[in-house]
Amino acid sequence: MAQAGGFRLGELAERFSLKLQGDPAVAVAGVCALAPGQPGRLSFCADPRLRPALAGTRAAAVVIAPSDAGAFPGNALLAPDPALAFARIAALFDTSSEFAPGIHPLAAVAADAVVEEGAGIGPGAVVEAGARVGAGSYVGPHCVIRRGAAVGPGSRLEAQVYLGPGCRLGARASVLPGAVIGGRGFGLARSRAGWVEVPQLGAVQIGDDVEIGANTTIDRGALDDTVIGDGVKLDNQIQIAHNCRIGAHTAIAACVGIAGSTNVGSRCMIGGAVGIGGHLQIADDVVILGRAMVTKSIAAAGIYGSGLPAMPAREWRKLVARIRRLQNFEQRLEQIEQALQLQNGSGEASESDPSGSDASGKDDF
Amino acid sequence: MAQAGGFRLGELAERFSLKLQGDPAVAVAGVCALAPGQPGRLSFCADPRLRPALAGTRAAAVVIAPSDAGAFPGNALLAPDPALAFARIAALFDTSSEFAPGIHPLAAVAADAVVEEGAGIGPGAVVEAGARVGAGSYVGPHCVIRRGAAVGPGSRLEAQVYLGPGCRLGARASVLPGAVIGGRGFGLARSRAGWVEVPQLGAVQIGDDVEIGANTTIDRGALDDTVIGDGVKLDNQIQIAHNCRIGAHTAIAACVGIAGSTNVGSRCMIGGAVGIGGHLQIADDVVILGRAMVTKSIAAAGIYGSGLPAMPAREWRKLVARIRRLQNFEQRLEQIEQALQLQNGSGEASESDPSGSDASGKDDF
Amino acid sequence: MAQAGGFRLGELAERFSLKLQGDPAVAVAGVCALAPGQPGRLSFCADPRLRPALAGTRAAAVVIAPSDAGAFPGNALLAPDPALAFARIAALFDTSSEFAPGIHPLAAVAADAVVEEGAGIGPGAVVEAGARVGAGSYVGPHCVIRRGAAVGPGSRLEAQVYLGPGCRLGARASVLPGAVIGGRGFGLARSRAGWVEVPQLGAVQIGDDVEIGANTTIDRGALDDTVIGDGVKLDNQIQIAHNCRIGAHTAIAACVGIAGSTNVGSRCMIGGAVGIGGHLQIADDVVILGRAMVTKSIAAAGIYGSGLPAMPAREWRKLVARIRRLQNFEQRLEQIEQALQLQNGSGEASESDPSGSDASGKDDF
Repeated sequence: MAQAGGFRLGELAERFSLKLQGDPAVAVAGVCALAPGQPGRLSFCADPRLRPALAGTRAAAVVIAPSDAGAFPGNALLAPDPALAFARIAALFDTSSEFAPGIHPLAAVAADAVVEEGAGIGPGAVVEAGARVGAGSYVGPHCVIRRGAAVGPGSRLEAQVYLGPGCRLGARASVLPGAVIGGRGFGLARSRAGWVEVPQLGAVQIGDDVEIGANTTIDRGALDDTVIGDGVKLDNQIQIAHNCRIGAHTAIAACVGIAGSTNVGSRCMIGGAVGIGGHLQIADDVVILGRAMVTKSIAAAGIYGSGLPAMPAREWRKLVARIRRLQNFEQRLEQIEQALQLQNGSGEASESDPSGSDASGKDDF
Repeated sequence: MAQAGGFRLGELAERFSLKLQGDPAVAVAGVCALAPGQPGRLSFCADPRLRPALAGTRAAAVVIAPSDAGAFPGNALLAPDPALAFARIAALFDTSSEFAPGIHPLAAVAADAVVEEGAGIGPGAVVEAGARVGAGSYVGPHCVIRRGAAVGPGSRLEAQVYLGPGCRLGARASVLPGAVIGGRGFGLARSRAGWVEVPQLGAVQIGDDVEIGANTTIDRGALDDTVIGDGVKLDNQIQIAHNCRIGAHTAIAACVGIAGSTNVGSRCMIGGAVGIGGHLQIADDVVILGRAMVTKSIAAAGIYGSGLPAMPAREWRKLVARIRRLQNFEQRLEQIEQALQLQNGSGEASESDPSGSDASGKDDF
Repeated sequence: MAQAGGFRLGELAERFSLKLQGDPAVAVAGVCALAPGQPGRLSFCADPRLRPALAGTRAAAVVIAPSDAGAFPGNALLAPDPALAFARIAALFDTSSEFAPGIHPLAAVAADAVVEEGAGIGPGAVVEAGARVGAGSYVGPHCVIRRGAAVGPGSRLEAQVYLGPGCRLGARASVLPGAVIGGRGFGLARSRAGWVEVPQLGAVQIGDDVEIGANTTIDRGALDDTVIGDGVKLDNQIQIAHNCRIGAHTAIAACVGIAGSTNVGSRCMIGGAVGIGGHLQIADDVVILGRAMVTKSIAAAGIYGSGLPAMPAREWRKLVARIRRLQNFEQRLEQIEQALQLQNGSGEASESDPSGSDASGKDDF
C-alpha cells in the first residue's frame, strides 16, 4: 500500500481523522523512531518517559496525545491513542507483505487444489489435493498445505510453514516462518511393550485475524479439534498442545507452553515463557506475568505470576538453602511458642501439622 | 489401513481379542470423543471422571473397562485398558500417514543414495550422496537427508525435517515438521580473540520406534555420538544437546531442554518445560514434573519436581519479598532462642551459621 | 580442509606451534574421545577429572597441558590451553562444511540477486531480488534469502534458514537449520476491535563470526534494527525479540528468551532457558546461570541466578506449602518478639509492615 512519494501531513490527518498541528504540506516519506529521528519521516510519542526526546527529534512530524500538544511546538498529528494511530499510519509504508500473484514454477500444487484469485504461491510451496488457498493470500516458499487444509482470504504464510491435513486458517492470518500447525499431538498409551501412539484424528481450527509466530507449534486434536479464536496473537516458539482452545483476542508472548486440553479464555495476556499445565480452565481477561508456572485453573480475571527473580548467584545459593530449611524454621517457631505458651496466631497456621511430620494435608497442588 | 465402509463391532472384538457387549452387527465407520459422540462411531471411556458422560453419548459403541460394563447397557467392547485398546482400534481409521511411493520430480535424490522399495520421497526433499531411505519410509516435502545419513524402514519424516550427515534413524520412526536432528552441537573454546567453535564430529544415533516432535532439535556429538534409545517419545520443541544419551522408552513432553553430555535413564517420564543441566545422570524410571529445574544428578527412581506455582501477582510480589527476608527471619529466630536459652531443635539447623555471615557451607548445589 | 592420509604428529606440532613429546612420525588420521580412544587418532585432556583416563587411552597421541606431561609418558602435544588447541586441530578433520560451488538447478535465484565467487546455492534455496550472497558462502537446501538481504563472505546457512528482507549477516556466519532471522516482531497496539499489528519496519543486523543455532528466532526491529554483535554465539531454540541488542562475543545457551528492546552487554554468558524481560540493560561480562528469571536490569559484571532446584515431589509440595505460609511465620515471629519485648534485629525488617496487611511497600520488582 506504499504510495510513491509518500504523503502530505494534511493527507494523513484527513485519512485517519486526526487533528493537525502545524504545516499540512509537510512531506512524510516514511516512519522512524523518535530519537534521533529522521528528516522527512513521521514518528510518535506514546510513552511519558520518552517525552524529553520530543524536543530534539529530527522527525518531520510526530503523532502525540492532545495533552502533549502544548509542550511540543512542531508539526504533529494529535491522537487519543498515539501508538494505535501510528501503527495504522505506519502500515502505509510497510511493503514487506507485497507479493506477485500466481503460482511459481517450482511450486507443487495438486490438480484438484483450489487457488483463488490474486493468491500467490511461492517457489517450493506444496498445496496438496483438496486444499484451498483463499483470494489474495500468499503462500511463501517451502510452505506445505496438506490435503484438505484451507487458508482463508487475505492471509500470509511467510515461508516454511506447515499446515496439516484438514486444518483451517481464517481470513487475514499472518503466519511466520517455521510455524507448524496441525502436527500430530503427543498422545501416548502405555502397553507392556512400551508406548503406543494414540492416533490424532482431529485438526486445528483457527479463526480470523490471527498471527502465529516463527517456529510456533500447534498440534492437531486427538478426536476433537484444537481451536484458536478470532484475533488471537501468538508470538514465536509457542507450543500449544492437542485439544487446547484459545479464546478470541488473547495475546501470548514468546516461548509459552500450554499442555493438552487446556482452555484459555478471551482477551487474556500471557507473558513470555509461561507454562500452563494440561486440562486447566483459564478465565477470560486473565493476565499472566512472564515465566509463571500455572498448575491449577484460574477462575477469575486478574493478574497472576510466580517465580523467583535473579539475584547474585552467591545470594541465590544461600537463599535456596534457607528455603530448604523452612521446615526447621517452622519447628523452631513451634518450640518457642510452646515455651512461651503462646497461641499460634493465625487460622491458617492452626491447620499446620504440629508433629512436623510429612502428613500435612495442605499440599494440595 | 482404513477399510472402506468401516467395520462391524464384532469384527473389531475379534481382531483385538476384546469381549463384546451388545450387537456385533453395529457398523463402526470411525472414532469420536465421548461427549457428545457421533452416530456410527466408536468412542471410549478410561477416565472415571468421564463416566457420567457414558450414558448420554451418541457414539454407536464404546470401549470400556469390564468393571464399567454393568453400568452401561449399550454396545461396548470390554478391555482391561480401554485407552490402549482404543488407541489400537483408532489406528485403523488414521489415514494421515498414507503416501504415494516413488520419488517426486521436484525432489533431489543423489545418484548414489539408496531409496528402498515402497519408499516415498516428497516434493523438494533432498537425499544426499550415500544416504539411505528404508523400505516403505516416507520422506516428506523439504526434508533434507544429508550425506551418509540413514532412515530405517517404515519411518515417516513428515515435512521440513533435517537429518544431519551420518545420522541414523531406526525403524518405524515418526518425525514431525521442523525437527532438526544432527545440527552441530554448541561447543566453544575460549581464545583471546573470542570464542572458537569446537568441531562437532559425532553424529546422532536413534533407535527403533522413536517419535520426534515438531521443531525439536537434537544436536550431533562432539567426538562420540548423541544417542536416543528404542521407543523414546519426544514431544515438540525439545532441545537435546550434544552427547546426551536418552534411555529406551523414555517419554519427554514439550519444551524440555537437556544440556550436553547428560544421560537420562530408561522408562523416564519428563514433564513439559523441564530443564536438565549438563553432565548429569538421571536414573531409570524417574518421573520429573513439569517445569522442574534439575541441577544435580538423580540417583533413584521416583517423582521429582520444583517451582513455585502461579498466584495473584500482588500475593506473589509479597511472597518474593518475604522469601528474600528469610535471612532476617533466621537471625530473629536465633536471637529469640538465645533470649529463651532454647536449644536449636534440629540436627540440620545445628549446621547453620550462627554468625549469619555468608560463609555457610551448605549451599552445595 | 581434510588432508588425505591425515597428518604426522610432528606436522601438527609445527603447524600449531605446540611442543611435541614422543614420536613426531606418528600418523594422525582423525580425532577421538579420550576414553576409550581410537588407534591412529588424536585426543585431548583438559579436565583434571579425566586425567585418570589418560593412561588407558587407545588414542595415538593426546593434547595435554605441559603440567600433565610428566605424568603421561605417551605421544603428546603440549598446549597451555589443550581444549583450544584441540579445537583448532580437530577443525582439520571436519568435512561437514564442504560443499560444491554453484547454483543448484532446483534453486530459485532472482536475476538481480548477486551470488559471489565460490558460493554454493543448494536445491530449493531461494535468493530474492536485490539479495547478495558473499564469496565462498553456502546457502543450503530450502533456505530463503529475502529481498535486499545480504550474507557475508565465508558464511554457511546449513538448510531451511530464513533471512528476512533487508537483513544482514556478517562474514563467516554459521546458521543452523530452521533458524528464522528477521521474522516480524511481536508488536501490537490495542484498539476497540482487538489487537492491531504494529508494522515492523526495521531489520536484523548481524556482525561477523556469529553462530546461530537450530530453530533459533531473531525478530526484526519495529523502527530501528535488532543488532547482534561480532562473535556472538547463539545455541538452539533461542528467541530474541525485536530491537534487542546483543554485545560482541556474548554466548547464549539453548532455549533462552529475551524480550523486546533489551540490551545485553559484551562477553556475557547466558545459561540455558534463562528468561530476560523487555527493556532491560544487562552489563558487560555478566554470567547468568541456567533457568534464571531476569526481571530487572543488571548493572554490574558478576554471576547471577535464580530458581528452586528439583527435589522429590513430596518434599517439593511441602516446601511450597511452607513458602506460602511465610506470612504466617513472620506474624508469629513478631508476636514472639512482642511477648519477649525483643527488638526486631535488622534494619531491613524494621521496614516490614507489622499489621501484616498487604500494603507493604517493599515489593518492588
